[in-house]
Amino acid sequence: MKLYKANIIFTREKDRFEVVEHGYVGVENGRVVGVASSSDAFDREVEEVIDYGDCLLIPAMNDLHVHAAQYRNQGVAMDLKLMEWLKTYTFPEEAKYSDTHYAERMYSRFVRDLWRFGTMRAAVFASVHLESTRVLMNLFREAGMGAFVGKVNMDQNAIDALYETVEDAVANNEALIAEWSDPDSLVRPIITPRFVPSCSSAMLRSCGELAKRYQLPVQSHLSENHNEIAWVRKLEPESRFYGDAYDRYGLFGQTPTIMAHCVYSADEELDLMERRDIMVAHCPTSNLNLSTDISPIRSFLNRGLKVGLGSDISGGHDLSIMRMMAYAIQVSKLWYNRDRRRQFLTLSEAFWLATKSGGSFFGRVGSFEPGYEFDALVIDDSTFNHDNYSLLNRLERFIYMGDDRHIAVRFCRGREIPEPRILD
Amino acid sequence: MKLYKANIIFTREKDRFEVVEHGYVGVENGRVVGVASSSDAFDREVEEVIDYGDCLLIPAMNDLHVHAAQYRNQGVAMDLKLMEWLKTYTFPEEAKYSDTHYAERMYSRFVRDLWRFGTMRAAVFASVHLESTRVLMNLFREAGMGAFVGKVNMDQNAIDALYETVEDAVANNEALIAEWSDPDSLVRPIITPRFVPSCSSAMLRSCGELAKRYQLPVQSHLSENHNEIAWVRKLEPESRFYGDAYDRYGLFGQTPTIMAHCVYSADEELDLMERRDIMVAHCPTSNLNLSTDISPIRSFLNRGLKVGLGSDISGGHDLSIMRMMAYAIQVSKLWYNRDRRRQFLTLSEAFWLATKSGGSFFGRVGSFEPGYEFDALVIDDSTFNHDNYSLLNRLERFIYMGDDRHIAVRFCRGREIPEPRILD
Repeated sequence: MKLYKANIIFTREKDRFEVVEHGYVGVENGRVVGVASSSDAFDREVEEVIDYGDCLLIPAMNDLHVHAAQYRNQGVAMDLKLMEWLKTYTFPEEAKYSDTHYAERMYSRFVRDLWRFGTMRAAVFASVHLESTRVLMNLFREAGMGAFVGKVNMDQNAIDALYETVEDAVANNEALIAEWSDPDSLVRPIITPRFVPSCSSAMLRSCGELAKRYQLPVQSHLSENHNEIAWVRKLEPESRFYGDAYDRYGLFGQTPTIMAHCVYSADEELDLMERRDIMVAHCPTSNLNLSTDISPIRSFLNRGLKVGLGSDISGGHDLSIMRMMAYAIQVSKLWYNRDRRRQFLTLSEAFWLATKSGGSFFGRVGSFEPGYEFDALVIDDSTFNHDNYSLLNRLERFIYMGDDRHIAVRFCRGREIPEPRILD
Repeated sequence: MKLYKANIIFTREKDRFEVVEHGYVGVENGRVVGVASSSDAFDREVEEVIDYGDCLLIPAMNDLHVHAAQYRNQGVAMDLKLMEWLKTYTFPEEAKYSDTHYAERMYSRFVRDLWRFGTMRAAVFASVHLESTRVLMNLFREAGMGAFVGKVNMDQNAIDALYETVEDAVANNEALIAEWSDPDSLVRPIITPRFVPSCSSAMLRSCGELAKRYQLPVQSHLSENHNEIAWVRKLEPESRFYGDAYDRYGLFGQTPTIMAHCVYSADEELDLMERRDIMVAHCPTSNLNLSTDISPIRSFLNRGLKVGLGSDISGGHDLSIMRMMAYAIQVSKLWYNRDRRRQFLTLSEAFWLATKSGGSFFGRVGSFEPGYEFDALVIDDSTFNHDNYSLLNRLERFIYMGDDRHIAVRFCRGREIPEPRILD
């Protein structure tokens, strides 16, 4: 067993932080043995003590919704509206991933930058292209970082270059599934219909069948904006609500499922999501940049829905899940203002979303409780800590003001992760 | 005349960028002579050409509202409500500035960090303390950066340690005014009643008299939240609206005036602000963190009001005016969502707010038009520019994703500004 010594902060429950000043995390076989304030508290042989001095040690970040194939467009065209943005920037960009060399250049930067910001697990949309998706999965494997990677499936309402036949889509998904079948792999496939409008009924049905046959998780988009919801009503007139369109095809919690956005999900949809244990990927910067309204996350938590945070590059402009925490708190206050009986998110709740709650999609990830995989960040905030701040003030300042410079060391499943290489 | 060569971007008008690829800015005696695409276009002797290669060259940032004496609390207690936050964190923190050694430690970091983020001009609230305010002004002078610095005036509704008598306040203001009377100085005093609730009528009257007697500008807070507005109505019952309370004492545009926030300013207040040419300091992160609603800046621009951007540390958590541009665009979309007939801010408008519009409070600052003081930033975005982005895409990516690392060189009034020193 190795012992890591630092100022340890994590959340067991959303309402409060666990804090151990100058404490120890014991780690064996990639998993946490326990946390204690003394090295004598562990009943095992100590192989090594690694002392990070006055640094903070926190669980690593989990990104539940991010489009790797939009990485080039990060921070571009942020003053357009959703459909204009998709047609002018997003679809043409994704079409470039028919070129695997382009994919290597961009995806290697994407993985490196996830690393920079301490995101050790991500649920990722690639593009429709089999070869490029394989490139991305191999880059994650090489980096030693965890990811569910989805080859995107779509056959309508986008641009020709992004369409596949249903047969091709099934064959390409099955090729990846066969290659990435080890359930212990940090990198695994996830069934990814882009969203209802860009999938025919046959495509949605095939996606549902793949998820069921191979018992694979599912990710997609849900109820992001009014036009989209009206469109789904037209395309799938027998569905009672947007989520019902996924549900009819076995894509709504029949296997573990992430739905991004849920800005306008009504009670009937939320009730079904709750019964089906669906994870909401809350993407606050994307809500601000493109959705034009805010997902009411605080009330989702009150009703017991599962929620994690997503950067949603490139609808979102920022890869940092630390910044997503700050934004999540900020936008939750807009709901508080509309109705003062509502609460807004607290810091511990935002942290719990980014770590333990979001991490739960990847297994026992996101906490330092015994048995959790040791995904962790060593935070060196010495440049910020110029006046004896409390440990929780230091954490908050790192979340609001910090960046990749303040992440000194990153662990995924117990292994220290070096900087991934860039391909050119 | 010196010539600076780079990719030049600035805004003459809010609706569009001026872009000169690999162009030249001519600078003499600290002021811009002109911008041209060839070095032959200038009719003066060229003393030196400084070539910044493929970097961007843009006007420097202007921060119209920031509390230097809250600098220690940046990024702390961001999940509290306004009055709780003021009483628990802000007032006790400001009281520490009775100690000039503390002021040196904190203010030197504050000035250094403004520098880091490329803010070359700022309208600053210090604390009530004369000596510490002098420390701050000297730090700005030593750094060579521009600032209006306000000794804060208050005599009620805060905590005892922050009160002065009206007589002391007048004497202390006059001491600073006498010391900083050079109208060409980059650092100048500004009359700063904290806000109506913390000033007796006598204090407000004295502040107005000081502004008039010495023809000095004024800064304060206006219509930030509902409780505050109701409070002002009680405290100044003869005023027709919040701004009228300032106006009755000569603090509402009788001399150049900045009013921060204006989240809930109604038409009558806005009409008077327009007539009085008052500058609104829009602080979008602070709006999100503490105000619980958003100042409708886009409609302010439509009616011709003057607007600039403010970080509002520590109600805001981020010193970067680049991030304020991104936030300003984001929160303007919330207004668009409430009423689709509204527009949201474009990138050029946000840039114009941060540079030319905000800069106008400091003189001819914030543009590269002839006669403007040369306040500029050299942006080295080579780490972002991995795929031949257009110049405007590069600018947008810097604004949304960049930080101090990407600012290679900073100029204020024609002088290259080195990193200010930290005092301990």
